[in-house]
Amino acid sequence: MARGRFITLEGGEGAGKSTQARRLATWLAEAGLPVLRTREPGGSPGAEAIRGVLLGAGPWDPVAETMLHFAARREHVARMIEPALAAGIWVVCDRFADSTLAYQVAGQGTQRAVWDRLAAMALGALRPDLTLVLDIPAEAGLARAEARGETNRYETLGLAFHGRIRDAFLAVAAAEPGRCAVVDATQGLEAVTHAMRGVVRQRLLDR
Amino acid sequence: MARGRFITLEGGEGAGKSTQARRLATWLAEAGLPVLRTREPGGSPGAEAIRGVLLGAGPWDPVAETMLHFAARREHVARMIEPALAAGIWVVCDRFADSTLAYQVAGQGTQRAVWDRLAAMALGALRPDLTLVLDIPAEAGLARAEARGETNRYETLGLAFHGRIRDAFLAVAAAEPGRCAVVDATQGLEAVTHAMRGVVRQRLLDR
Repeated sequence: MARGRFITLEGGEGAGKSTQARRLATWLAEAGLPVLRTREPGGSPGAEAIRGVLLGAGPWDPVAETMLHFAARREHVARMIEPALAAGIWVVCDRFADSTLAYQVAGQGTQRAVWDRLAAMALGALRPDLTLVLDIPAEAGLARAEARGETNRYETLGLAFHGRIRDAFLAVAAAEPGRCAVVDATQGLEAVTHAMRGVVRQRLLDR
Repeated sequence: MARGRFITLEGGEGAGKSTQARRLATWLAEAGLPVLRTREPGGSPGAEAIRGVLLGAGPWDPVAETMLHFAARREHVARMIEPALAAGIWVVCDRFADSTLAYQVAGQGTQRAVWDRLAAMALGALRPDLTLVLDIPAEAGLARAEARGETNRYETLGLAFHGRIRDAFLAVAAAEPGRCAVVDATQGLEAVTHAMRGVVRQRLLDR
């Protein structure tokens, strides 16, 4: 059986990741592919328990927070993502390791070496086959998130913080063009969905 | 102001660590020293929240579990232990990093390199000034823990597991004789207390 493909959606607040992850998973399923849609932090029982602590307690020491994200990720990978991919299931994941790089390293100033070592421990050789970076300027994204009434502790951290997040995602995409594709998320919902399908078709389906 | 001293108590199930930690802290306080008694996993609000997840959810992937222990430890060190030591307070801690080495590495088979890297991230240069290893054969320790009616998930893992835990603590003590002292915990409560006081006097007070 062919191994499933692993697609991650990344981007700042208000980029539309959750909506687009749902749409992408539905589209792949309608094309006859077995699909698991999941999210981080969380996605498996242990990882969701860690998510609850991450979001419910704190403020966290930045290194401790980074460790919590990778502990949840390790659970998610070991219990859910790896078994699904091995069973031929495609996985669409709303946020993954790049979000920890953007928020904890670029945003909060955790050392890059901490991220590197935790990623090596948690992921082994696993990398997404495709990472869709939904790109939107920080100001526009925050305005959207606010309009949805979805404020979280990150959304109150100011434009400079969210500018660093955006730059970090774009830097990852520039450094790993084979894995990543940047999608302009300032477009309307339908245009973003269309652009994402084009990338998935070209990179993963027409091969 | 002189920095406080950092004393950790380590050992397997039924070694009497909690009782002896209480006695040691009381004795130091009665000698006029400012003392913080604490424990792991836990010891600060964030770390106690992680403790709740660690003990309440699971079973955990071994690497994820090791990360959770060090995330809690980082919180405990950053929020509680380091500020206390800097303020001249002596810290008596029931379990610390050696327990993660014994239970997760020697017991559950997590790679030693994972422990090394997480310890470097979580502790920086912090090391206990004194680690008292309360040593008791696995069978005797488990019998005591059972008699107290305190069974946890480790206590059901069998003698071979607990034999590895004991060997791991003894190996740490042999490798770091300047930091560690082994106390025979098969003795009665008073004899163990007396032996511990002798070590603390010799290593930390009569200097």
